Amino acid sequence: MSTPKEDWRTLCSRRKQKQNENIPPEWRIQVPSKDVQNVMDVPYTCGLLSPEELALTDRDLDDLVADLTSGKLKSEDATRAFLKRAIVAHQVTNCLTEIFVDRALDRAREVDKYMEEHGKPMGPLHGLPISLKDQFTMKGLETIMGYASNIGKFADHDCVLVEMLYELGAVPFVRTNVPQTLMWGETQNNVFGRTTNPYNHHLTAGGSSGGEGALLAMNGSPLGVGTDIDGSLRIPSAFCGLYTLRPSYERLPYHGAANALTGQESISSVLGPMSHSLGSLKLFTKALVDARPWERDPLVVRKPWNEDEYRLVDHDRGKRMCFGMLWDNKVVKPHPPLKRAMEMVKRALEEAGHVVIDWEPLNHVDIYRVAQTILVADGGEDYRRDCEVSGEPLITSMSPEKDAHQIDLEVSLVKMLTGPPRSRSAYELWQLHTEKRNLRKAYLDHWNATAKRTGTGRPVDAIISPAVAYTAVPHGLNYDSFYTTLGNAMDYACSGFPVTVVDPEQDMPHDPHDFHNHEDAAFYKLYHHELFAGLPVGLQLIGRTLEEEAVIGMTEIVDGIVKDYKKRNNLQ
Amino acid sequence: MSTPKEDWRTLCSRRKQKQNENIPPEWRIQVPSKDVQNVMDVPYTCGLLSPEELALTDRDLDDLVADLTSGKLKSEDATRAFLKRAIVAHQVTNCLTEIFVDRALDRAREVDKYMEEHGKPMGPLHGLPISLKDQFTMKGLETIMGYASNIGKFADHDCVLVEMLYELGAVPFVRTNVPQTLMWGETQNNVFGRTTNPYNHHLTAGGSSGGEGALLAMNGSPLGVGTDIDGSLRIPSAFCGLYTLRPSYERLPYHGAANALTGQESISSVLGPMSHSLGSLKLFTKALVDARPWERDPLVVRKPWNEDEYRLVDHDRGKRMCFGMLWDNKVVKPHPPLKRAMEMVKRALEEAGHVVIDWEPLNHVDIYRVAQTILVADGGEDYRRDCEVSGEPLITSMSPEKDAHQIDLEVSLVKMLTGPPRSRSAYELWQLHTEKRNLRKAYLDHWNATAKRTGTGRPVDAIISPAVAYTAVPHGLNYDSFYTTLGNAMDYACSGFPVTVVDPEQDMPHDPHDFHNHEDAAFYKLYHHELFAGLPVGLQLIGRTLEEEAVIGMTEIVDGIVKDYKKRNNLQ
Repeated sequence: MSTPKEDWRTLCSRRKQKQNENIPPEWRIQVPSKDVQNVMDVPYTCGLLSPEELALTDRDLDDLVADLTSGKLKSEDATRAFLKRAIVAHQVTNCLTEIFVDRALDRAREVDKYMEEHGKPMGPLHGLPISLKDQFTMKGLETIMGYASNIGKFADHDCVLVEMLYELGAVPFVRTNVPQTLMWGETQNNVFGRTTNPYNHHLTAGGSSGGEGALLAMNGSPLGVGTDIDGSLRIPSAFCGLYTLRPSYERLPYHGAANALTGQESISSVLGPMSHSLGSLKLFTKALVDARPWERDPLVVRKPWNEDEYRLVDHDRGKRMCFGMLWDNKVVKPHPPLKRAMEMVKRALEEAGHVVIDWEPLNHVDIYRVAQTILVADGGEDYRRDCEVSGEPLITSMSPEKDAHQIDLEVSLVKMLTGPPRSRSAYELWQLHTEKRNLRKAYLDHWNATAKRTGTGRPVDAIISPAVAYTAVPHGLNYDSFYTTLGNAMDYACSGFPVTVVDPEQDMPHDPHDFHNHEDAAFYKLYHHELFAGLPVGLQLIGRTLEEEAVIGMTEIVDGIVKDYKKRNNLQ
Repeated sequence: MSTPKEDWRTLCSRRKQKQNENIPPEWRIQVPSKDVQNVMDVPYTCGLLSPEELALTDRDLDDLVADLTSGKLKSEDATRAFLKRAIVAHQVTNCLTEIFVDRALDRAREVDKYMEEHGKPMGPLHGLPISLKDQFTMKGLETIMGYASNIGKFADHDCVLVEMLYELGAVPFVRTNVPQTLMWGETQNNVFGRTTNPYNHHLTAGGSSGGEGALLAMNGSPLGVGTDIDGSLRIPSAFCGLYTLRPSYERLPYHGAANALTGQESISSVLGPMSHSLGSLKLFTKALVDARPWERDPLVVRKPWNEDEYRLVDHDRGKRMCFGMLWDNKVVKPHPPLKRAMEMVKRALEEAGHVVIDWEPLNHVDIYRVAQTILVADGGEDYRRDCEVSGEPLITSMSPEKDAHQIDLEVSLVKMLTGPPRSRSAYELWQLHTEKRNLRKAYLDHWNATAKRTGTGRPVDAIISPAVAYTAVPHGLNYDSFYTTLGNAMDYACSGFPVTVVDPEQDMPHDPHDFHNHEDAAFYKLYHHELFAGLPVGLQLIGRTLEEEAVIGMTEIVDGIVKDYKKRNNLQ
């Protein structure tokens, strides 16, 4: 006799309750009323963190790591400070899933003890608190990953990433929220609910690594790990003002992590760092690659960290580079703040002696159609099965209230391109692969052909593009992943970096243009400069496949130039 | 009004006729009668090649390349000699498809002219004649690839490999035969017919790169390029006494080549060198990788040639290595000559100070089932369509006469494992990927765990194994690809290398063992020491994924040790 199956609602609310109980009572704060849209200053005003803890959690990653690996700063102190700030962030954005304060502090003490006994750090991530998207399995914890059906399933192993992070000395200290199915650019599920954007709780933090986005925006973690199959690192990073790296397929170890669409290998999900600090990109990637992840995860490419590529040996050592600016991918035209950000970057780069030319989009609609068709080639079977187990319904809109928005986006362009969901055969999938492969070849040739226009003797060194055509939008409205899909479908190594914030005075609506399609028209109408005031505006830098080292190197240069430019011109 | 479709038989015989006409009349030889089983000495006896040409075509690749790249030897002379010898080989084994004597000689003269004008070689393959499997598209030629439907389709581009070979200075000079569908370990199709083994025309040269196998065995080419999705480089190399390298997925540029199962990317077909000369492995692989193939083929891994890995930095610099000997994969037990070859290698390695331990097979039947199921996941749709166009029938047996063999292999183990062919859904394919991924992880952990047994402090440096459980067999009987599939499914970089020849006096039948399955029993019965006398016996060396450099380096060491051992002990 089996016990009668519990209703999914009961399951979920009990699990949410358990999560609440994991918050130490003394760390509860007075949550501001819903009238307060921007909660970014709550860590400073709530009184939970001491001035030292605030200063510590506000520090740049490089300094923090230097002090941790030299033993100047105890991991326990750093971990406690970030735990507090993370739990503050959680209380105002609902960004966390797993909260395990004692375990995290125990680990921090273990690391501190190692330093005491050996007089040297455990590894390059010694003592560093790291937050993890709710896919990275940790022994003894559940990996809910947005599904009620995962409640009560405790992992008997760490995934390879976590195994390696431990060996490198890190302190995994919280796990962060995701959308059901993982396949949304927003973050909401039936177990843990919705994550909101700390700059404005009416807006999404992005997704699917949206828990990381909100947490990191509030400095609730110095470094987080998210994943990206269609923009899931870059979207929340752009919406929350963060740096990120979307590496190429199989550069970093994913084995053993939970995932949606398991076994789908046509467009592989990848993992990467997200952080307030630029230094996170090299620190995280190099630490993992130097530890030879291909000896743990059979899919990881055997490609050692290449310091020459990082020093831009293929890009004139960074001296005079040429960037292709993707002003408009001809699918959705970027909102005014994105345009201004690109103009600012262009001017800054040119003043610094680099070249900026227009990037011509090629086959973008075909690329999106093929990619999006591949991602639904199972006709939704994967989601259906994950929901069926618990009986929870499949979430079909990220909008808090149905019809809350006046903009008609019901028939999305993606759905128009991919047609109604249906199960494809293996043979049909193979044809999509062939089409994708030919699109990759065409894009490669197109890129190489820019050598004729750059004036540097080389093709464009990297493309600079919006990550999303807009800044954070109201919940339920983030339909467009077209700027990010390019990287996933072509498998380009991409970074995301913050550039500026929306300035309603400068970022007035543009005059209507000749709309590319109904979605472009809808997104045009969505722009209201007052609504978006103060929001982070990020861009992405797109390099070649498996060119992570150079993408990091170029991002550091571009970021430095933009920061100098802003300082010189007194810009935000 | 369309013209009535021509019967496929007419199409094929006219195409075969055209092939015959491409043989210069003065290069026709007196073909020995069918009573002569072994045609290996025909180049020496037929009178077509001068003593100088015979000496030139018998030279080791390293010498040949040194003289070509220094300008000491003219490419035209080398190319003419190899063309002659290739056409001799063709007349006795039917190994060629495309014959283009004038075009090849023109290219050779172009290369010679370059040397004259510039005083330096065009590239590392300067002037070297290279034969190509009938998949590597060349502008202006058809790529029949075993299908009548490809007759009359002339390519308007070179595939990336050919494009790069030209730039490296090579002289593509013939193309070689394949089986219809490419998915057999033998070589026969309705257009060009069957390729036979030059050691015995009753036996297969292997496949699917069997045209290369027969051609290279007779020194009709110094270096050939084949492909491998399930053993197609290693099987003909083992059956014909050659060296080969099966690189990991996407190390070398396949883009633009014709292929079967186009778009199937779960187990990617790869290309690699085949040759009489050991030096071919490094020469070919390094030349291509150094030319940055990822700038031409978007799927190629951006991994520069790593000379440290070639010098075995991860393997004690080759000083004291440990090899795992796969005596029996528990699916089909190797024939006596293979066992003797492994024993010889073991003794030779041990005398040279290396360690040899037994390799324990793990999950081999599961690995084969998953791999073989993936390869028929389209339910045969790909083959069906390629046959439909011309109306030619799908070849269902490689046997020259039905029921010619007394051994019942009709129900092959592969078919029993994969079940009747049926079209799988994308979702089902994803589940196979998950299973494959877990099998790869299990095999990786299994390999790493050998560190406890090797005595070197490291896991086994490489596995040594038969490529096939037997030497060349009568046409229609090469059913077993289980020793090669391991490399394709786990994506291990593997080499093939010749060890000895069948010696009927030493290689007496073994007593029957406890058969693993009915196929193992059938292959046991197949062994007749007199039938196989004098045939080449080859093994493979299996390294880690994307470890091509180290696999080449280790193969060079093992080969040298075995050659020394044979010389010291006066063995063949």
